[in-house]
Amino acid sequence: GPCAIESREQAFAIAERVRAAGARLFRGGAYKPRTSPYSFQGLGEQGLKILAEVRAEFGLKIVTEAVDAESLDLVEQYGDVIQIGARNMQNFSLLKRAGRARKPVLLKRGLSATLDEFLMAAEYILAEGNPQVILCERGVRTFADHTRNTLDLSVVPAVERLSHLPILVDPSHGTGRREKVLPLSRAAVAVGADGLLVEVHHQPSKALSDGYQSILPDDFDRLLEEVRAIAAVLGRTLAAQPTAAQAAKALH
Amino acid sequence: GPCAIESREQAFAIAERVRAAGARLFRGGAYKPRTSPYSFQGLGEQGLKILAEVRAEFGLKIVTEAVDAESLDLVEQYGDVIQIGARNMQNFSLLKRAGRARKPVLLKRGLSATLDEFLMAAEYILAEGNPQVILCERGVRTFADHTRNTLDLSVVPAVERLSHLPILVDPSHGTGRREKVLPLSRAAVAVGADGLLVEVHHQPSKALSDGYQSILPDDFDRLLEEVRAIAAVLGRTLAAQPTAAQAAKALH
Amino acid sequence: GPCAIESREQAFAIAERVRAAGARLFRGGAYKPRTSPYSFQGLGEQGLKILAEVRAEFGLKIVTEAVDAESLDLVEQYGDVIQIGARNMQNFSLLKRAGRARKPVLLKRGLSATLDEFLMAAEYILAEGNPQVILCERGVRTFADHTRNTLDLSVVPAVERLSHLPILVDPSHGTGRREKVLPLSRAAVAVGADGLLVEVHHQPSKALSDGYQSILPDDFDRLLEEVRAIAAVLGRTLAAQPTAAQAAKALH
Amino acid sequence: GPCAIESREQAFAIAERVRAAGARLFRGGAYKPRTSPYSFQGLGEQGLKILAEVRAEFGLKIVTEAVDAESLDLVEQYGDVIQIGARNMQNFSLLKRAGRARKPVLLKRGLSATLDEFLMAAEYILAEGNPQVILCERGVRTFADHTRNTLDLSVVPAVERLSHLPILVDPSHGTGRREKVLPLSRAAVAVGADGLLVEVHHQPSKALSDGYQSILPDDFDRLLEEVRAIAAVLGRTLAAQPTAAQAAKALH
Repeated sequence: GPCAIESREQAFAIAERVRAAGARLFRGGAYKPRTSPYSFQGLGEQGLKILAEVRAEFGLKIVTEAVDAESLDLVEQYGDVIQIGARNMQNFSLLKRAGRARKPVLLKRGLSATLDEFLMAAEYILAEGNPQVILCERGVRTFADHTRNTLDLSVVPAVERLSHLPILVDPSHGTGRREKVLPLSRAAVAVGADGLLVEVHHQPSKALSDGYQSILPDDFDRLLEEVRAIAAVLGRTLAAQPTAAQAAKALH
Repeated sequence: GPCAIESREQAFAIAERVRAAGARLFRGGAYKPRTSPYSFQGLGEQGLKILAEVRAEFGLKIVTEAVDAESLDLVEQYGDVIQIGARNMQNFSLLKRAGRARKPVLLKRGLSATLDEFLMAAEYILAEGNPQVILCERGVRTFADHTRNTLDLSVVPAVERLSHLPILVDPSHGTGRREKVLPLSRAAVAVGADGLLVEVHHQPSKALSDGYQSILPDDFDRLLEEVRAIAAVLGRTLAAQPTAAQAAKALH
Repeated sequence: GPCAIESREQAFAIAERVRAAGARLFRGGAYKPRTSPYSFQGLGEQGLKILAEVRAEFGLKIVTEAVDAESLDLVEQYGDVIQIGARNMQNFSLLKRAGRARKPVLLKRGLSATLDEFLMAAEYILAEGNPQVILCERGVRTFADHTRNTLDLSVVPAVERLSHLPILVDPSHGTGRREKVLPLSRAAVAVGADGLLVEVHHQPSKALSDGYQSILPDDFDRLLEEVRAIAAVLGRTLAAQPTAAQAAKALH
Repeated sequence: GPCAIESREQAFAIAERVRAAGARLFRGGAYKPRTSPYSFQGLGEQGLKILAEVRAEFGLKIVTEAVDAESLDLVEQYGDVIQIGARNMQNFSLLKRAGRARKPVLLKRGLSATLDEFLMAAEYILAEGNPQVILCERGVRTFADHTRNTLDLSVVPAVERLSHLPILVDPSHGTGRREKVLPLSRAAVAVGADGLLVEVHHQPSKALSDGYQSILPDDFDRLLEEVRAIAAVLGRTLAAQPTAAQAAKALH
């Protein structure tokens, strides 16, 4: 899906395309944590209502971010998967609240989180009684300047050795550059990720956020084709994967 | 002050010593964001009540951390300065709530925050109408393994060029090693910091958190003596500094 | 091949196995740059002679590292590909000398080299008249502690956009952990790398260096099988790749 | 001194000024390791001859960089202190050659060198029989973008605990920004460094390299005044410091 929900028209246009490509999940932000207080902050509850319409119209499951206790209440009500963003990975109050939710939680790795810190953040959710946690690698901060973040694919086999939790990879935020999304998506599936989060926008140059890292729907079709072929090499099919993760791959 | 408020006895013992050394501010955590959900999480409101007693008894101003909207309400009620920790530097809901508070906010730099992100986080507070923001450098994440974090003192002159806000340095979290607190405190004052946050504990080996980076009260006396002499070289006196920051240096 | 040439027996045992797996190149170090002066430093010219025997016996091309002008003279004489290690990526005297060699140069990325610095280091070789430069990503230094280095696969598509030079990936040094070599090898081929450098040892626990990141010959067979299948998905065959790089993949 | 020796006139103009300020050492590069092969590479032996004239004329000791075995032979002949640059910190052949020299060696920390690697690099020199090694912190690579490198002052007390070797700090390369050189010089002395390396140029805007981080002679006067006052607070005088280091501070 897109980074942020901007309007009903935008959401429907993208949902239609990714649904046609075989997606089952749709991610879009109604609450957007932005570096600057003067950037577009998301549509809030209005965005959540648009997402609910997307579900009704296209049969897609909705993944969307909660940024505090109030938005989590609403996301739990309108959405299907509650996303906790990288900047909130150690917002322990929010993690505990997510641990009391009845819906799966997608937890993104912080920009400088060690593996231990990442798994301990998940533990905050699990310890409150919510067993449905999906991890997501989205790049870490390094000195490298040819990419917005450095995607750390080695964390995928490391998680597999230490945890039963599924792990997705987000090559859109992980690289911050559109032209790297396709090759890093292939690599993420090849390394063993349980799914992908990819930003798709039908008019990236007009996107209110993250346009430079969103790919076009046609590129998304090609991406799905290539990652399916690589998944097959590993003896995995999209349908054989953990439910939430599979949906994430299939769709998003 | 100490990292966490553990008991009335501990808080009073430390407060008495730092007050005698000339401190005017006392920092102690009632709400502790910890990597693991199974570590000591702080005494909560009970800790805030102990801090209020410390103020009444010793005439020290209280600095303590808020981790969500509810604890911020209480910290605003019981404390004098509201601390936002490094892990919450981009918890924008919390920043906005702090921006509506009537008390000064001490904002710690995130472990991988760029200078722009740090100043933009302060802007979230300022934009809501609270002009009393104090920045605090407390170390960043790097590959270096001889120190828990890498204290980035170069951010101090960089902040001075870009912002009117005062900036403190926390050499305790910034190094994570007791033996480095004194030399890095000297360096922080020499580079131009407006004050210091130093963890002091009368029995570090029994501390419930951060004992290995807390210094003893006697070392704190020596630290104050050395940094006062360096401040004098720069033509600054503790009393000549911004109110909140000065208090922080004088005490904490 | 192995990290270091330890003896004629060791080199022949490994060469026989990787040759059988279809390899055409054999990498082994005669001159070993080691962090400590008290670690095994390699066999020197004696190691080069063993490598020459490996070539004569098994028909494998030899890749081995030069660390200064003298060893480069010998490597040029005995070997087929001259390796410049990560620690020498900005040893400009050595790069210039390699630029005057008549054999291909395998240039490994420094542990904290930006993409520009990496390409400029290659330029030192090219500018002296040697057009045969092969780049190699082998991991960079970050805060992450679940892996020895952080393999930066995003540099592969970045190199493809900026340079005509082929780029290999070394998942052995790039992760430093045996169990990550197979998944990261798959990811490297999926992202578009022109080949792999993989450390293989028939008795890793007895290796004089890097034993913990060397895989067994049987695992190497499986690795080659999987990466060939992924290369096929991308429409690439091993034989279709640049000569030096292909050899590197096929063998090493 | 300046970064690079550009001409007799430039060297003499700067030497005259720093001599007047009380300096005893003069650092200038005749061999310049540059990222690009197309940048100014230094004057080579001609530069060394100019440096020898500076010594004869102003009574200053000469510190200059060697980049390979040949330049080291010449630097040993013309200079007083042999510098090994950050990019060559793990050029072990060069370190061994420096270990057989009869003159002190100034070893700069690599951009991503851990403390262990730094001390082990010194050990390569010591193990060959040269006991005169001076360490130098000059900044490390991190994600921070408000400074060219991140000066790691915490390494100074760490070296003091683990080694008898003196350690200098180079705030010019360590920050890469002229306006940070003065405050970080104060901090370096306050943290306990045994001396400073500071780039001074009488016409920074015309410098062939590093002009943006060179300070003017007048600023150097002020810098010396401030760091002397801070050294006095620590009970140190410039004259009480190790010979080479003291000279470096006094001069350079």
